[in-house]
Amino acid sequence: MNDVNLSKLQGILEYEFKDITLLETATLHSSYIKEHGSEKSSNERLEFLGDSCLGLVIAEILYRKNIANEGLMTQLKANIVCEDSLAKLARRLKLGVFLRMSKGQLNINGKNNSSMLADFVESIIGAIYLDGGFFEAKKFISRVFHSLIDAAIEGKLFSDYKSKLQEYYQKRGENIPTYRLLKKTGMDHNPSFEIGVYSWDGRCLAVAKATTKKEAEKQAAKKALGNISTEVNEDDI
Amino acid sequence: MNDVNLSKLQGILEYEFKDITLLETATLHSSYIKEHGSEKSSNERLEFLGDSCLGLVIAEILYRKNIANEGLMTQLKANIVCEDSLAKLARRLKLGVFLRMSKGQLNINGKNNSSMLADFVESIIGAIYLDGGFFEAKKFISRVFHSLIDAAIEGKLFSDYKSKLQEYYQKRGENIPTYRLLKKTGMDHNPSFEIGVYSWDGRCLAVAKATTKKEAEKQAAKKALGNISTEVNEDDI
Repeated sequence: MNDVNLSKLQGILEYEFKDITLLETATLHSSYIKEHGSEKSSNERLEFLGDSCLGLVIAEILYRKNIANEGLMTQLKANIVCEDSLAKLARRLKLGVFLRMSKGQLNINGKNNSSMLADFVESIIGAIYLDGGFFEAKKFISRVFHSLIDAAIEGKLFSDYKSKLQEYYQKRGENIPTYRLLKKTGMDHNPSFEIGVYSWDGRCLAVAKATTKKEAEKQAAKKALGNISTEVNEDDI
Repeated sequence: MNDVNLSKLQGILEYEFKDITLLETATLHSSYIKEHGSEKSSNERLEFLGDSCLGLVIAEILYRKNIANEGLMTQLKANIVCEDSLAKLARRLKLGVFLRMSKGQLNINGKNNSSMLADFVESIIGAIYLDGGFFEAKKFISRVFHSLIDAAIEGKLFSDYKSKLQEYYQKRGENIPTYRLLKKTGMDHNPSFEIGVYSWDGRCLAVAKATTKKEAEKQAAKKALGNISTEVNEDDI
């Protein structure tokens, strides 16, 4: 990547690198390295480091916000440090244009691929951590993630059935429900997941099946919400 | 806990707390808090923080040791930051005696419970992180984990079939095999896991079933080692 682009990227990140090659490495997707037979490293190892760094900073922020228990902290952290959230952040900061990938990836709209965008954000965090230390990485993460963190705590991060179900229990002052994989059938290329959603005291609220865990959880949450509204109606009678 | 004991614990940890109540909190298992109806916090939130802190420090150490690829880094990190390793460390440092738990837990040999010991180590790391910052936590982790890390890198951390299989491929300069859950049957209280172990290029080396994932992985690795020695013999013919 030319210096002009790296300089633009630094501007967006509001962080100036002492060692600009670290930022350059963060922009190199493994498909680019393979295509060009380059001797440079891809961003995968930085991503590994950035993921752990992000994990600690988010954990500390949640700790200091006095989130009541460890179960809720774990769930909030998972909602913040996930592909969806990181890709949203990458799109908000318009980072995609700086990620270098193979022509094949470019042709299938790789610059808008959530998984690659999420990995890119983690690689950038890894690069800042190595360049400026934990303090600088923490400053960067605190700045760019604060609205995501607030949204997660307010339960607004995902306007889907799972969050609605979570909100329902949080409003009643109860622990949030948990999801358990009950059965996986089929081979890896064509799996079927059966997921159950359970209240904190182990009561099964609903069970659903789908071809991905995420979808099965969503469907289980939808059913559970349906069951709850039935219960509420019955109570009203 | 009385001051003498906390002082002894600090001696073992080779770290002196500015805020000793953080270390005290790290020693309080949730069962103790419940039994005593105490208003104090249990160590669960510190454990959450310590787990993330340990994750980052281990990730950085592996990064700086120039581990070749992200897949191997992930596997090594998982081998180091796991219940088995953390409990071993707790036993080596004789930490169990300082963990406070309910009489019920004490009666079932809770002071030697691997899960509780592992959580205790993470709680202590969380307490050091809050008390002394990332630098002190990193210093502590680097000191007490260095032999575990070296053993993991040398593939000696678990002298079981999985490690032997991993060593076999590492010695040949190949990527290490991965494990995939192919099927889970039965309900949560009586599950059966079918695990496949695959070479880096996706070839299935063996498949095995057991009542826990860990056992199924071990059995799959054992079968794979058996298949390899058969192959080697056939090549010799």
